[in-house]
Amino acid sequence: MGGMQIAYQGEPGAYSEAAALKFAPTATPLPIASFDEVFAAVAGGRATHGILPMENSIGGSIHRNYDLLLEHDLPIVGEVELRVDHCLLALPGTRLEQVQVVYSHPQALAQVETALRQMRGVEVVAVYDTAGAAKMVREGNRQNAAAVASRRAADVFGLEILRESIQDFRDNITRFCVITTPPGHADGADKTSMVFALASRPGALFKALAGFALRDINLTKIESRPLRGKPWEYAFYVDVEAPHTLPGLQRAIADLEEYCYWVRTLGSYRAWKP
Amino acid sequence: MGGMQIAYQGEPGAYSEAAALKFAPTATPLPIASFDEVFAAVAGGRATHGILPMENSIGGSIHRNYDLLLEHDLPIVGEVELRVDHCLLALPGTRLEQVQVVYSHPQALAQVETALRQMRGVEVVAVYDTAGAAKMVREGNRQNAAAVASRRAADVFGLEILRESIQDFRDNITRFCVITTPPGHADGADKTSMVFALASRPGALFKALAGFALRDINLTKIESRPLRGKPWEYAFYVDVEAPHTLPGLQRAIADLEEYCYWVRTLGSYRAWKP
Repeated sequence: MGGMQIAYQGEPGAYSEAAALKFAPTATPLPIASFDEVFAAVAGGRATHGILPMENSIGGSIHRNYDLLLEHDLPIVGEVELRVDHCLLALPGTRLEQVQVVYSHPQALAQVETALRQMRGVEVVAVYDTAGAAKMVREGNRQNAAAVASRRAADVFGLEILRESIQDFRDNITRFCVITTPPGHADGADKTSMVFALASRPGALFKALAGFALRDINLTKIESRPLRGKPWEYAFYVDVEAPHTLPGLQRAIADLEEYCYWVRTLGSYRAWKP
Repeated sequence: MGGMQIAYQGEPGAYSEAAALKFAPTATPLPIASFDEVFAAVAGGRATHGILPMENSIGGSIHRNYDLLLEHDLPIVGEVELRVDHCLLALPGTRLEQVQVVYSHPQALAQVETALRQMRGVEVVAVYDTAGAAKMVREGNRQNAAAVASRRAADVFGLEILRESIQDFRDNITRFCVITTPPGHADGADKTSMVFALASRPGALFKALAGFALRDINLTKIESRPLRGKPWEYAFYVDVEAPHTLPGLQRAIADLEEYCYWVRTLGSYRAWKP
Protein backbone atom coordinates (compact mmCIF):
# COMPACT_ATOMS: atom_id res chain seq x y z
CA MET A 1 0.00 0.00 0.00
CA GLY A 2 3.11 2.28 -0.03
CA GLY A 3 2.80 5.35 -2.21
CA MET A 4 -1.00 5.23 -2.23
CA GLN A 5 -2.70 8.67 -2.33
CA ILE A 6 -6.47 8.59 -1.78
CA ALA A 7 -8.45 11.61 -2.93
CA TYR A 8 -11.58 12.40 -0.88
CA GLN A 9 -14.15 15.18 -0.74
CA GLY A 10 -13.69 17.37 2.31
CA GLU A 11 -11.05 18.62 4.73
CA PRO A 12 -8.77 16.57 7.02
CA GLY A 13 -11.01 15.09 9.73
CA ALA A 14 -13.88 14.38 7.27
CA TYR A 15 -15.71 11.03 7.43
CA SER A 16 -14.39 10.28 3.92
CA GLU A 17 -10.83 10.68 5.20
CA ALA A 18 -11.57 8.24 8.05
CA ALA A 19 -12.96 5.77 5.48
CA ALA A 20 -9.80 6.19 3.35
CA LEU A 21 -7.57 5.39 6.34
CA LYS A 22 -9.74 2.40 7.22
CA PHE A 23 -9.21 1.11 3.67
CA ALA A 24 -5.43 1.69 3.76
CA PRO A 25 -3.94 2.89 7.08
CA THR A 26 -0.60 3.90 5.52
CA ALA A 27 -2.07 5.80 2.55
CA THR A 28 -1.84 9.59 2.16
CA PRO A 29 -5.36 11.08 2.11
CA LEU A 30 -5.73 13.98 -0.32
CA PRO A 31 -8.47 16.55 0.50
CA ILE A 32 -10.48 17.73 -2.55
CA ALA A 33 -13.35 20.22 -2.87
CA SER A 34 -16.01 18.18 -4.77
CA PHE A 35 -16.93 14.65 -5.93
CA ASP A 36 -16.28 15.64 -9.57
CA GLU A 37 -12.77 16.74 -8.65
CA VAL A 38 -12.13 13.45 -6.81
CA PHE A 39 -12.78 11.63 -10.11
CA ALA A 40 -10.62 14.19 -11.97
CA ALA A 41 -7.74 13.75 -9.49
CA VAL A 42 -7.72 9.96 -10.02
CA ALA A 43 -8.18 10.17 -13.81
CA GLY A 44 -5.42 12.78 -14.05
CA GLY A 45 -2.96 10.85 -11.88
CA ARG A 46 -2.81 13.37 -8.97
CA ALA A 47 -4.05 10.54 -6.72
CA THR A 48 -3.69 6.77 -7.12
CA HIS A 49 -7.17 6.21 -5.63
CA GLY A 50 -10.35 8.05 -4.76
CA ILE A 51 -12.99 7.32 -2.10
CA LEU A 52 -16.71 8.17 -2.45
CA PRO A 53 -19.79 7.80 -0.26
CA MET A 54 -22.30 5.67 -2.21
CA GLU A 55 -25.10 4.98 0.26
CA ASN A 56 -26.23 5.95 3.74
CA SER A 57 -28.45 3.79 5.92
CA ILE A 58 -30.80 6.74 6.65
CA GLY A 59 -30.50 8.90 3.54
CA GLY A 60 -30.33 6.21 0.82
CA SER A 61 -28.13 5.96 -2.28
CA ILE A 62 -26.11 8.96 -3.41
CA HIS A 63 -27.21 8.81 -7.04
CA ARG A 64 -24.76 11.56 -8.03
CA ASN A 65 -21.81 9.27 -7.36
CA TYR A 66 -23.39 6.39 -9.30
CA ASP A 67 -23.78 8.84 -12.21
CA LEU A 68 -20.13 9.87 -11.94
CA LEU A 69 -19.02 6.20 -11.91
CA LEU A 70 -20.87 5.74 -15.21
CA GLU A 71 -19.37 8.91 -16.71
CA HIS A 72 -15.82 7.72 -15.96
CA ASP A 73 -13.90 4.52 -16.49
CA LEU A 74 -12.44 4.22 -12.98
CA PRO A 75 -13.11 0.77 -11.49
CA ILE A 76 -14.15 0.15 -7.89
CA VAL A 77 -11.41 -1.77 -6.06
CA GLY A 78 -12.61 -1.56 -2.48
CA GLU A 79 -15.58 -0.93 -0.23
CA VAL A 80 -15.65 0.45 3.31
CA GLU A 81 -18.56 0.75 5.72
CA LEU A 82 -18.19 3.49 8.31
CA ARG A 83 -20.40 4.31 11.27
CA VAL A 84 -21.31 8.01 11.21
CA ASP A 85 -21.06 9.27 14.77
CA HIS A 86 -21.66 13.01 14.95
CA CYS A 87 -20.21 15.00 17.86
CA LEU A 88 -20.69 18.62 18.88
CA LEU A 89 -17.21 20.18 19.02
CA ALA A 90 -16.06 23.50 20.48
CA LEU A 91 -12.93 25.28 21.67
CA PRO A 92 -11.60 23.91 24.98
CA GLY A 93 -13.43 25.62 27.85
CA THR A 94 -16.65 26.37 25.92
CA ARG A 95 -19.76 25.25 27.81
CA LEU A 96 -22.83 23.86 25.98
CA GLU A 97 -25.00 26.76 27.25
CA GLN A 98 -22.62 29.30 25.68
CA VAL A 99 -23.06 27.96 22.14
CA GLN A 100 -24.98 30.44 19.95
CA VAL A 101 -24.01 29.20 16.46
CA VAL A 102 -23.49 25.69 15.08
CA TYR A 103 -21.63 24.97 11.81
CA SER A 104 -21.74 21.80 9.68
CA HIS A 105 -22.43 20.25 6.28
CA PRO A 106 -26.13 20.33 5.27
CA GLN A 107 -26.43 16.50 5.30
CA ALA A 108 -24.94 16.31 8.80
CA LEU A 109 -27.25 19.10 10.01
CA ALA A 110 -30.23 17.12 8.66
CA GLN A 111 -29.07 14.07 10.65
CA VAL A 112 -28.89 15.86 14.03
CA GLU A 113 -32.18 17.77 13.91
CA THR A 114 -33.36 16.59 17.33
CA ALA A 115 -30.17 17.72 19.08
CA LEU A 116 -30.26 21.11 17.33
CA ARG A 117 -33.90 21.69 18.23
CA GLN A 118 -33.02 21.11 21.89
CA MET A 119 -30.48 23.96 21.69
CA ARG A 120 -33.19 26.59 21.55
CA GLY A 121 -32.41 29.78 19.68
CA VAL A 122 -29.09 28.54 18.32
CA GLU A 123 -28.20 29.72 14.80
CA VAL A 124 -27.38 26.85 12.42
CA VAL A 125 -24.94 27.66 9.62
CA ALA A 126 -24.27 25.36 6.66
CA VAL A 127 -20.71 24.95 5.36
CA TYR A 128 -19.23 22.65 2.72
CA ASP A 129 -17.85 19.94 4.95
CA THR A 130 -18.09 18.67 8.55
CA ALA A 131 -14.33 18.94 9.14
CA GLY A 132 -14.35 22.38 7.52
CA ALA A 133 -16.89 23.40 10.18
CA ALA A 134 -14.47 22.26 12.92
CA LYS A 135 -11.68 24.21 11.22
CA MET A 136 -13.86 27.36 11.24
CA VAL A 137 -14.51 27.07 14.96
CA ARG A 138 -10.75 26.70 15.61
CA GLU A 139 -9.73 29.53 13.29
CA GLY A 140 -12.52 31.87 14.35
CA ASN A 141 -11.35 31.25 17.95
CA ARG A 142 -14.89 31.90 19.22
CA GLN A 143 -16.20 30.61 22.55
CA ASN A 144 -19.81 30.77 21.33
CA ALA A 145 -19.49 28.55 18.26
CA ALA A 146 -19.62 24.77 17.78
CA ALA A 147 -19.30 22.32 14.87
CA VAL A 148 -21.09 19.04 14.12
CA ALA A 149 -18.30 16.71 12.99
CA SER A 150 -16.49 13.46 13.78
CA ARG A 151 -14.51 12.63 16.90
CA ARG A 152 -11.41 12.62 14.66
CA ALA A 153 -12.09 16.24 13.62
CA ALA A 154 -11.83 17.18 17.34
CA ASP A 155 -8.29 15.72 17.40
CA VAL A 156 -7.27 17.29 14.09
CA PHE A 157 -8.38 20.79 15.12
CA GLY A 158 -7.74 20.66 18.88
CA LEU A 159 -11.41 20.93 19.89
CA GLU A 160 -13.32 19.46 22.81
CA ILE A 161 -16.36 17.19 22.53
CA LEU A 162 -19.40 18.86 24.16
CA ARG A 163 -21.83 16.08 23.18
CA GLU A 164 -21.32 12.81 21.31
CA SER A 165 -23.52 10.51 19.18
CA ILE A 166 -26.02 13.32 18.57
CA GLN A 167 -27.38 11.81 15.32
CA ASP A 168 -31.18 11.29 15.30
CA PHE A 169 -30.76 7.57 14.54
CA ARG A 170 -28.07 5.41 16.14
CA ASP A 171 -27.61 3.15 13.13
CA ASN A 172 -26.19 5.69 10.74
CA ILE A 173 -23.77 3.86 8.45
CA THR A 174 -22.25 5.12 5.20
CA ARG A 175 -20.88 2.77 2.55
CA PHE A 176 -17.93 4.16 0.57
CA CYS A 177 -16.29 2.79 -2.56
CA VAL A 178 -12.65 3.14 -3.54
CA ILE A 179 -11.84 3.84 -7.20
CA THR A 180 -8.59 3.71 -9.15
CA THR A 181 -7.33 3.75 -12.75
CA PRO A 182 -7.92 0.70 -15.00
CA PRO A 183 -7.40 -2.19 -15.00
CA GLY A 184 -7.67 -1.94 -11.20
CA HIS A 185 -7.80 -5.61 -10.25
CA ALA A 186 -8.22 -6.03 -6.51
CA ASP A 187 -6.56 -8.90 -4.66
CA GLY A 188 -8.91 -11.20 -2.82
CA ALA A 189 -12.04 -9.70 -4.39
CA ASP A 190 -15.26 -11.17 -3.01
CA LYS A 191 -17.83 -8.74 -4.41
CA THR A 192 -18.70 -7.31 -7.84
CA SER A 193 -20.80 -4.20 -8.62
CA MET A 194 -22.61 -3.64 -11.89
CA VAL A 195 -25.24 -1.43 -13.49
CA PHE A 196 -27.57 -2.49 -16.29
CA ALA A 197 -30.54 -0.99 -18.11
CA LEU A 198 -33.79 -2.81 -18.84
CA ALA A 199 -37.07 -2.00 -20.53
CA SER A 200 -39.97 -1.60 -18.10
CA ARG A 201 -41.73 -4.83 -19.10
CA PRO A 202 -43.28 -7.60 -17.02
CA GLY A 203 -40.68 -10.26 -16.27
CA ALA A 204 -37.70 -8.26 -17.57
CA LEU A 205 -35.94 -8.09 -14.20
CA PHE A 206 -36.83 -11.71 -13.42
CA LYS A 207 -35.10 -12.87 -16.62
CA ALA A 208 -32.11 -10.63 -15.92
CA LEU A 209 -31.67 -12.13 -12.43
CA ALA A 210 -32.05 -15.73 -13.63
CA GLY A 211 -28.37 -15.97 -14.60
CA PHE A 212 -27.32 -15.18 -11.02
CA ALA A 213 -29.97 -17.31 -9.28
CA LEU A 214 -29.37 -20.43 -11.40
CA ARG A 215 -25.63 -20.23 -10.61
CA ASP A 216 -26.19 -19.69 -6.86
CA ILE A 217 -24.67 -16.18 -6.92
CA ASN A 218 -26.04 -14.10 -4.05
CA LEU A 219 -27.18 -10.46 -4.47
CA THR A 220 -26.36 -8.02 -1.64
CA LYS A 221 -27.92 -4.93 -3.23
CA ILE A 222 -30.47 -4.18 -5.89
CA GLU A 223 -31.94 -0.79 -6.65
CA SER A 224 -33.92 0.43 -9.63
CA ARG A 225 -33.67 3.99 -10.83
CA PRO A 226 -35.82 5.49 -13.58
CA LEU A 227 -33.67 6.71 -16.49
CA ARG A 228 -34.71 10.36 -16.90
CA GLY A 229 -35.43 11.26 -20.50
CA LYS A 230 -36.08 7.56 -21.27
CA PRO A 231 -39.55 7.12 -19.76
CA TRP A 232 -39.85 3.32 -19.92
CA GLU A 233 -36.33 2.28 -19.07
CA TYR A 234 -34.73 1.64 -15.71
CA ALA A 235 -31.14 1.33 -14.55
CA PHE A 236 -30.47 -1.29 -11.88
CA TYR A 237 -27.55 -1.14 -9.49
CA VAL A 238 -26.67 -4.71 -8.44
CA ASP A 239 -23.92 -5.98 -6.11
CA VAL A 240 -23.18 -9.71 -5.99
CA GLU A 241 -21.09 -11.83 -3.60
CA ALA A 242 -18.60 -13.19 -6.16
CA PRO A 243 -15.35 -12.03 -7.76
CA HIS A 244 -15.44 -10.94 -11.40
CA THR A 245 -12.95 -13.73 -12.18
CA LEU A 246 -15.50 -16.45 -11.27
CA PRO A 247 -16.44 -18.18 -14.56
CA GLY A 248 -20.08 -18.49 -13.38
CA LEU A 249 -20.32 -14.72 -12.85
CA GLN A 250 -18.81 -14.06 -16.26
CA ARG A 251 -21.43 -16.33 -17.84
CA ALA A 252 -24.21 -14.65 -15.81
CA ILE A 253 -23.06 -11.24 -17.11
CA ALA A 254 -22.98 -12.63 -20.66
CA ASP A 255 -26.60 -13.79 -20.16
CA LEU A 256 -27.47 -10.32 -18.86
CA GLU A 257 -26.09 -8.74 -22.02
CA GLU A 258 -28.74 -10.62 -24.03
CA TYR A 259 -31.61 -8.98 -22.10
CA CYS A 260 -30.26 -5.51 -21.35
CA TYR A 261 -29.73 -2.31 -23.34
CA TRP A 262 -26.35 -2.05 -21.67
CA VAL A 263 -24.37 -3.60 -18.83
CA ARG A 264 -21.38 -2.03 -17.04
CA THR A 265 -19.25 -3.81 -14.47
CA LEU A 266 -18.21 -1.10 -12.01
CA GLY A 267 -15.53 -3.18 -10.31
CA SER A 268 -14.69 -6.29 -8.34
CA TYR A 269 -13.26 -5.80 -4.87
CA ARG A 270 -13.03 -6.86 -1.25
CA ALA A 271 -15.58 -5.48 1.21
CA TRP A 272 -14.34 -4.03 4.54
CA LYS A 273 -17.07 -4.26 7.20
CA PRO A 274 -17.36 -1.79 10.14
CA MET B 1 -62.59 15.57 -2.11
CA GLY B 2 -64.55 18.00 0.11
CA GLY B 3 -63.46 18.09 3.73
CA MET B 4 -60.06 16.61 3.00
CA GLN B 5 -57.25 17.90 5.27
CA ILE B 6 -53.76 16.86 4.22
CA ALA B 7 -51.02 17.08 6.86
CA TYR B 8 -47.53 17.85 5.51
CA GLN B 9 -44.13 18.62 7.02
CA GLY B 10 -43.24 22.28 6.64
CA GLU B 11 -44.76 25.74 6.35
CA PRO B 12 -47.21 27.05 3.72
CA GLY B 13 -45.26 27.32 0.45
CA ALA B 14 -43.31 24.08 1.12
CA TYR B 15 -42.85 21.56 -1.72
CA SER B 16 -44.93 19.08 0.29
CA GLU B 17 -47.82 21.55 0.33
CA ALA B 18 -47.57 21.92 -3.46
CA ALA B 19 -47.65 18.11 -3.76
CA ALA B 20 -50.74 17.99 -1.50
CA LEU B 21 -52.57 20.50 -3.70
CA LYS B 22 -51.54 18.60 -6.84
CA PHE B 23 -53.10 15.49 -5.30
CA ALA B 24 -56.33 17.27 -4.27
CA PRO B 25 -56.68 20.93 -5.38
CA THR B 26 -59.62 21.62 -3.04
CA ALA B 27 -58.08 20.03 0.07
CA THR B 28 -56.95 22.02 3.11
CA PRO B 29 -53.20 21.54 3.62
CA LEU B 30 -52.19 21.33 7.29
CA PRO B 31 -48.60 22.41 8.13
CA ILE B 32 -46.85 20.15 10.68
CA ALA B 33 -43.35 20.28 12.21
CA SER B 34 -42.01 16.75 11.54
CA PHE B 35 -42.66 13.52 9.61
CA ASP B 36 -43.50 11.68 12.86
CA GLU B 37 -46.14 14.29 13.64
CA VAL B 38 -47.64 13.96 10.14
CA PHE B 39 -48.27 10.27 10.92
CA ALA B 40 -49.61 11.20 14.38
CA ALA B 41 -51.98 13.80 12.88
CA VAL B 42 -53.49 11.22 10.50
CA ALA B 43 -53.62 8.43 13.10
CA GLY B 44 -55.23 10.79 15.63
CA GLY B 45 -57.82 12.16 13.19
CA ARG B 46 -56.54 15.79 13.12
CA ALA B 47 -56.09 15.31 9.35
CA THR B 48 -57.88 12.97 6.94
CA HIS B 49 -54.65 12.44 4.95
CA GLY B 50 -50.91 12.98 5.16
CA ILE B 51 -48.33 13.49 2.41
CA LEU B 52 -44.68 12.37 2.64
CA PRO B 53 -41.63 12.60 0.38
CA MET B 54 -40.45 9.03 -0.30
CA GLU B 55 -37.73 9.38 -2.92
CA ASN B 56 -35.76 12.06 -4.73
CA SER B 57 -34.15 11.57 -8.13
CA ILE B 58 -30.81 12.94 -6.88
CA GLY B 59 -30.81 12.07 -3.20
CA GLY B 60 -32.39 8.58 -3.28
CA SER B 61 -35.03 7.00 -1.04
CA ILE B 62 -35.97 8.67 2.24
CA HIS B 63 -35.63 5.54 4.36
CA ARG B 64 -37.01 7.32 7.43
CA ASN B 65 -40.45 7.56 5.83
CA TYR B 66 -40.40 3.90 4.76
CA ASP B 67 -39.62 3.06 8.40
CA LEU B 68 -42.53 5.20 9.60
CA LEU B 69 -44.89 3.50 7.11
CA LEU B 70 -43.91 0.16 8.67
CA GLU B 71 -44.39 1.46 12.23
CA HIS B 72 -47.93 2.63 11.47
CA ASP B 73 -50.97 1.09 9.83
CA LEU B 74 -51.82 4.00 7.52
CA PRO B 75 -52.25 2.84 3.90
CA ILE B 76 -50.90 4.70 0.87
CA VAL B 77 -53.81 5.92 -1.27
CA GLY B 78 -52.00 8.20 -3.72
CA GLU B 79 -48.70 9.10 -5.26
CA VAL B 80 -47.53 12.46 -6.63
CA GLU B 81 -44.36 13.30 -8.52
CA LEU B 82 -43.25 16.91 -8.20
CA ARG B 83 -40.43 18.72 -9.97
CA VAL B 84 -38.27 20.49 -7.39
CA ASP B 85 -37.40 23.89 -8.81
CA HIS B 86 -35.42 25.97 -6.32
CA CYS B 87 -35.52 29.77 -6.57
CA LEU B 88 -33.55 32.43 -4.72
CA LEU B 89 -36.12 34.72 -3.07
CA ALA B 90 -35.72 38.14 -1.45
CA LEU B 91 -37.71 41.20 -0.43
CA PRO B 92 -38.88 43.30 -3.39
CA GLY B 93 -36.10 45.69 -4.38
CA THR B 94 -33.21 43.55 -3.12
CA ARG B 95 -30.47 43.10 -5.73
CA LEU B 96 -28.48 39.85 -6.03
CA GLU B 97 -25.20 41.64 -5.15
CA GLN B 98 -26.70 42.84 -1.86
CA VAL B 99 -27.38 39.34 -0.54
CA GLN B 100 -25.10 38.50 2.41
CA VAL B 101 -27.02 35.62 4.00
CA VAL B 102 -29.04 32.75 2.48
CA TYR B 103 -31.54 30.64 4.46
CA SER B 104 -32.98 27.23 3.57
CA HIS B 105 -33.51 23.60 4.59
CA PRO B 106 -30.26 21.56 4.71
CA GLN B 107 -31.40 19.25 1.85
CA ALA B 108 -32.24 22.22 -0.38
CA LEU B 109 -28.89 23.87 0.45
CA ALA B 110 -27.12 20.64 -0.59
CA GLN B 111 -29.00 20.74 -3.94
CA VAL B 112 -27.93 24.30 -4.86
CA GLU B 113 -24.22 24.11 -3.97
CA THR B 114 -23.01 25.47 -7.31
CA ALA B 115 -25.20 28.57 -7.12
CA LEU B 116 -24.17 29.24 -3.50
CA ARG B 117 -20.46 28.89 -4.31
CA GLN B 118 -20.89 31.53 -7.02
CA MET B 119 -22.19 33.97 -4.39
CA ARG B 120 -18.75 34.41 -2.87
CA GLY B 121 -18.59 35.17 0.84
CA VAL B 122 -22.32 34.69 1.41
CA GLU B 123 -23.29 33.17 4.77
CA VAL B 124 -25.48 30.07 4.44
CA VAL B 125 -27.90 29.41 7.32
CA ALA B 126 -29.86 26.18 7.75
CA VAL B 127 -33.48 26.31 8.90
CA TYR B 128 -36.15 23.60 9.25
CA ASP B 129 -38.03 24.15 6.02
CA THR B 130 -37.67 25.94 2.65
CA ALA B 131 -40.89 27.90 3.09
CA GLY B 132 -39.88 28.72 6.67
CA ALA B 133 -36.74 30.31 5.21
CA ALA B 134 -38.90 32.52 2.96
CA LYS B 135 -41.01 33.47 5.99
CA MET B 136 -37.86 34.52 7.89
CA VAL B 137 -36.75 36.80 5.06
CA ARG B 138 -40.21 38.44 5.02
CA GLU B 139 -40.49 38.76 8.78
CA GLY B 140 -36.87 39.87 9.30
CA ASN B 141 -37.59 42.54 6.66
CA ARG B 142 -33.91 42.55 5.68
CA GLN B 143 -32.62 43.73 2.28
CA ASN B 144 -29.45 41.63 2.60
CA ALA B 145 -31.09 38.21 3.11
CA ALA B 146 -32.44 35.60 0.67
CA ALA B 147 -34.15 32.20 0.88
CA VAL B 148 -33.86 29.08 -1.29
CA ALA B 149 -37.46 27.94 -1.76
CA SER B 150 -40.18 27.28 -4.32
CA ARG B 151 -41.76 29.80 -6.68
CA ARG B 152 -44.95 29.32 -4.67
CA ALA B 153 -43.20 30.42 -1.47
CA ALA B 154 -42.45 33.74 -3.21
CA ASP B 155 -46.22 34.26 -3.72
CA VAL B 156 -47.13 33.16 -0.19
CA PHE B 157 -44.64 35.52 1.48
CA GLY B 158 -44.62 38.42 -1.03
CA LEU B 159 -41.02 37.93 -2.12
CA GLU B 160 -39.32 38.50 -5.47
CA ILE B 161 -37.44 35.85 -7.43
CA LEU B 162 -33.78 36.88 -7.82
CA ARG B 163 -32.75 33.66 -9.61
CA GLU B 164 -34.74 30.60 -10.66
CA SER B 165 -33.94 26.91 -11.27
CA ILE B 166 -30.73 27.17 -9.27
CA GLN B 167 -30.56 23.45 -8.43
CA ASP B 168 -27.31 21.72 -9.43
CA PHE B 169 -29.21 19.17 -11.55
CA ARG B 170 -32.18 20.06 -13.71
CA ASP B 171 -33.96 16.74 -13.28
CA ASN B 172 -34.71 17.00 -9.60
CA ILE B 173 -37.99 15.17 -8.96
CA THR B 174 -39.45 14.11 -5.63
CA ARG B 175 -42.00 11.31 -5.33
CA PHE B 176 -44.54 11.77 -2.49
CA CYS B 177 -47.06 9.32 -1.12
CA VAL B 178 -50.43 10.15 0.40
CA ILE B 179 -51.52 8.20 3.49
CA THR B 180 -54.88 7.92 5.25
CA THR B 181 -56.60 5.79 7.88
CA PRO B 182 -57.60 2.17 7.08
CA PRO B 183 -59.13 0.67 5.04
CA GLY B 184 -58.15 3.48 2.66
CA HIS B 185 -59.23 2.00 -0.65
CA ALA B 186 -58.36 4.31 -3.53
CA ASP B 187 -60.63 4.62 -6.57
CA GLY B 188 -59.01 3.75 -9.88
CA ALA B 189 -55.87 2.32 -8.27
CA ASP B 190 -53.23 1.28 -10.80
CA LYS B 191 -50.24 0.71 -8.55
CA THR B 192 -49.49 -1.25 -5.35
CA SER B 193 -46.55 -0.81 -2.94
CA MET B 194 -45.25 -3.52 -0.67
CA VAL B 195 -42.30 -4.37 1.57
CA PHE B 196 -41.04 -7.87 2.27
CA ALA B 197 -38.07 -9.41 4.09
CA LEU B 198 -35.91 -12.20 2.69
CA ALA B 199 -32.89 -14.16 3.85
CA SER B 200 -29.69 -13.23 2.01
CA ARG B 201 -29.44 -16.49 0.04
CA PRO B 202 -28.68 -17.16 -3.63
CA GLY B 203 -31.91 -17.22 -5.61
CA ALA B 204 -34.13 -15.88 -2.78
CA LEU B 205 -35.11 -12.69 -4.60
CA PHE B 206 -35.48 -14.55 -7.90
CA LYS B 207 -38.03 -16.92 -6.31
CA ALA B 208 -39.82 -14.01 -4.65
CA LEU B 209 -40.20 -12.18 -7.99
CA ALA B 210 -41.38 -15.27 -9.87
CA GLY B 211 -45.00 -14.77 -8.80
CA PHE B 212 -45.07 -11.32 -10.42
CA ALA B 213 -43.12 -12.27 -13.57
CA LEU B 214 -45.16 -15.38 -14.31
CA ARG B 215 -48.37 -13.31 -14.05
CA ASP B 216 -47.04 -10.49 -16.27
CA ILE B 217 -47.16 -7.95 -13.41
CA ASN B 218 -44.64 -5.16 -14.05
CA LEU B 219 -42.33 -3.77 -11.32
CA THR B 220 -41.71 0.00 -11.29
CA LYS B 221 -39.40 0.06 -8.27
CA ILE B 222 -37.26 -2.38 -6.37
CA GLU B 223 -34.79 -1.51 -3.65
CA SER B 224 -33.03 -3.70 -1.13
CA ARG B 225 -32.16 -2.41 2.30
CA PRO B 226 -30.09 -4.32 4.87
CA LEU B 227 -32.11 -4.93 8.04
CA ARG B 228 -29.88 -3.51 10.79
CA GLY B 229 -29.51 -5.84 13.73
CA LYS B 230 -30.39 -8.78 11.44
CA PRO B 231 -27.13 -9.24 9.51
CA TRP B 232 -28.28 -11.68 6.81
CA GLU B 233 -31.74 -10.34 6.10
CA TYR B 234 -32.88 -7.70 3.67
CA ALA B 235 -36.07 -5.72 3.28
CA PHE B 236 -37.20 -5.07 -0.28
CA TYR B 237 -39.42 -2.15 -1.29
CA VAL B 238 -41.35 -3.13 -4.40
CA ASP B 239 -43.93 -1.17 -6.43
CA VAL B 240 -45.98 -2.96 -9.09
CA GLU B 241 -48.27 -1.69 -11.86
CA ALA B 242 -51.46 -3.41 -10.71
CA PRO B 243 -54.29 -2.70 -8.26
CA HIS B 244 -54.41 -4.75 -5.07
CA THR B 245 -57.85 -6.02 -6.16
CA LEU B 246 -56.36 -7.86 -9.17
CA PRO B 247 -56.70 -11.61 -8.39
CA GLY B 248 -53.30 -12.27 -10.01
CA LEU B 249 -51.59 -9.81 -7.68
CA GLN B 250 -53.31 -11.32 -4.66
CA ARG B 251 -52.01 -14.75 -5.70
CA ALA B 252 -48.51 -13.34 -6.31
CA ILE B 253 -48.53 -11.88 -2.78
CA ALA B 254 -49.72 -15.23 -1.40
CA ASP B 255 -46.75 -16.88 -3.19
CA LEU B 256 -44.45 -14.25 -1.70
CA GLU B 257 -45.66 -15.12 1.80
CA GLU B 258 -44.27 -18.64 1.32
CA TYR B 259 -40.72 -17.34 0.73
CA CYS B 260 -40.54 -14.29 2.99
CA TYR B 261 -40.17 -13.70 6.73
CA TRP B 262 -42.89 -11.09 6.38
CA VAL B 263 -44.82 -9.20 3.71
CA ARG B 264 -46.65 -5.87 4.17
CA THR B 265 -48.82 -4.26 1.53
CA LEU B 266 -48.36 -0.51 2.02
CA GLY B 267 -51.29 0.50 -0.17
CA SER B 268 -52.87 0.45 -3.60
CA TYR B 269 -53.39 3.78 -5.33
CA ARG B 270 -53.40 5.86 -8.47
CA ALA B 271 -50.12 7.53 -9.54
CA TRP B 272 -50.15 11.26 -10.48
CA LYS B 273 -47.30 12.02 -12.90
CA PRO B 274 -45.63 15.49 -13.17
